[in-house]
Amino acid sequence: MKALVYQGPGRKALEQRPKPEIKDPGDAIVRITKTTICGTDLHILKGDVPTCAPGRILGHEGVGVIDAVGPGVTTFRPGDRVLISCITACGTCDYCRRGMYSHCRTGGWILGNTIDGTQAEYVRIPHAATSLYPIPDGADEEALAMLSDILPTGFECGVLNGKVAPGATVAIVGSGPIGLAALLTAQFYSPAEIIMIDIDDNRLEVARRFGATRTLNSAQTNVPEAVKAWTGGMGADTVIEAVGIPATFELCQDLVAPGGIIANVGVHGHKADLHLDRLWAQNIAITTRLVDTVSTPMLLKTVQSRKLDPSVLITHRFTLDGILSAYDTFGHAADSHALKVVISP
Amino acid sequence: MKALVYQGPGRKALEQRPKPEIKDPGDAIVRITKTTICGTDLHILKGDVPTCAPGRILGHEGVGVIDAVGPGVTTFRPGDRVLISCITACGTCDYCRRGMYSHCRTGGWILGNTIDGTQAEYVRIPHAATSLYPIPDGADEEALAMLSDILPTGFECGVLNGKVAPGATVAIVGSGPIGLAALLTAQFYSPAEIIMIDIDDNRLEVARRFGATRTLNSAQTNVPEAVKAWTGGMGADTVIEAVGIPATFELCQDLVAPGGIIANVGVHGHKADLHLDRLWAQNIAITTRLVDTVSTPMLLKTVQSRKLDPSVLITHRFTLDGILSAYDTFGHAADSHALKVVISP
Repeated sequence: MKALVYQGPGRKALEQRPKPEIKDPGDAIVRITKTTICGTDLHILKGDVPTCAPGRILGHEGVGVIDAVGPGVTTFRPGDRVLISCITACGTCDYCRRGMYSHCRTGGWILGNTIDGTQAEYVRIPHAATSLYPIPDGADEEALAMLSDILPTGFECGVLNGKVAPGATVAIVGSGPIGLAALLTAQFYSPAEIIMIDIDDNRLEVARRFGATRTLNSAQTNVPEAVKAWTGGMGADTVIEAVGIPATFELCQDLVAPGGIIANVGVHGHKADLHLDRLWAQNIAITTRLVDTVSTPMLLKTVQSRKLDPSVLITHRFTLDGILSAYDTFGHAADSHALKVVISP
Repeated sequence: MKALVYQGPGRKALEQRPKPEIKDPGDAIVRITKTTICGTDLHILKGDVPTCAPGRILGHEGVGVIDAVGPGVTTFRPGDRVLISCITACGTCDYCRRGMYSHCRTGGWILGNTIDGTQAEYVRIPHAATSLYPIPDGADEEALAMLSDILPTGFECGVLNGKVAPGATVAIVGSGPIGLAALLTAQFYSPAEIIMIDIDDNRLEVARRFGATRTLNSAQTNVPEAVKAWTGGMGADTVIEAVGIPATFELCQDLVAPGGIIANVGVHGHKADLHLDRLWAQNIAITTRLVDTVSTPMLLKTVQSRKLDPSVLITHRFTLDGILSAYDTFGHAADSHALKVVISP
């Protein structure tokens, strides 16, 4: 089969690889119908993710059709259409039994990291019963590929951890795919204001189209002053960090209201300054989270009931043969205006 | 009347001052029967609290008897015994109506800071109806003076924010009066382990007497290694920071389990490093809080029902005439083994 393989920092190639086989009783082999590229794949390619060794097939998102299942899998059969969660969960370890699937003792984020991933014709999914979700009849597969990672990530790490509430003011720092996923799902809870912050005017325009009530270009505006002015000097109740660099995390500390929450979504490679000298008395909370994908069934229902349309995030489409162009388009989003790219094997 | 007056960094004196008078309809004048000294008073004396101007009578803790009330005060009468909250709350502003008394628009921590405090024979308490609590008949006034600040602070900022739960492992960094207040009130929730950490063996011995299941001297032990060894490699579910310096806050980041909480109680004068590079995926929360004293009525009930004995925190007693010696004893706790000192005018 064809597969996109990480060959070490800065290098990747579309290679021929053997089709994966059932190894454990709980495995399923899934024929990929749609997959996509994540910012995390770009981090791997920069050499920032040491757990991912050269030779690994990349990708942790996608939808497909069950090709084969191990003898322990009773809830899926060949031919079933499935959504692949970016988080593999055994469902039985101590973390899984607390609903903290991200920290599963034999799973977590392993797909396209420590085991071969979804940017291929087929993928082996361990713990299939608790790592795949059935796709309802008639659902748009391409749109559901957005539910493998970015929508649960924006929702769980940003909106749920940030306790977005009716009437609240929400500020989202970063208007890339993850920030936009938080913007889309924050609207479930009817906040009064959602302020999107980015340095790219195109992304801010997309944000306004997706429901942002205000936008700020942080390269051109004093963001803390503007947010304070709009909130009677108080700041935002929920601040969502969706970039992952020290400067944006530190900006969040200037935006949060007393009693508010900074919900970190960004993947960070460096420590940041925490201004406890002013924040110790501000009754705030800061949360971090690797997505657990516990909300995937709920998000599927919001798609079915048309409260959420994930397809708005899709800007470009490629075949698997064109995946190198897909990486190029996704990696140069400022020029290509790419949000999410969909790849069809 | 006699009063302990801050005279600028490094200087204080017992002075004669006029007895305070009712200024606003909601005021009460309280004759102090017991007061105490807080670590925050020492911060003021170092010049670390710019809101507190020279000439200020210090102190934000104490119990006493109502001497006079303004025409707006209907719930207290002269002769009533009262507990003074360190937090003054109007009860009507937006923050007060959310229960966030610490941020009251015309109150918060003002006593012994921006208005004259309790280390005197009399004190004026604004917003008396919502800043004083009636003392039940037969209650030990001296013990209740511990409920003005340190017990609600340890409880609200440490135990409640840290979500101490039955069966959980709690680590408390700092075994001074505030850390010990968190230790005493954490036991309401029956955690499996409470590990106390300090550099002073005397304080750790006190902690064991007060209910710590394990203690660690951080000057002599690799604390993260020990805590990981005791918790199957995971760390503590609740980590309470009760010191207020960057090094101890950073230690907390090495102790918290995935899914756990760092509840900051310490008063910080400097920023700290936040290791988001490892913590972004650890599903943790960090909380800060200036005590709201919303739990004071509940804590009073726990004292009445003998679930909590605040008198164990009292190590030394002085008259108001001896308050300079009281400061000396409290300020040299490593030698004097002082926890809380009680001063009787």
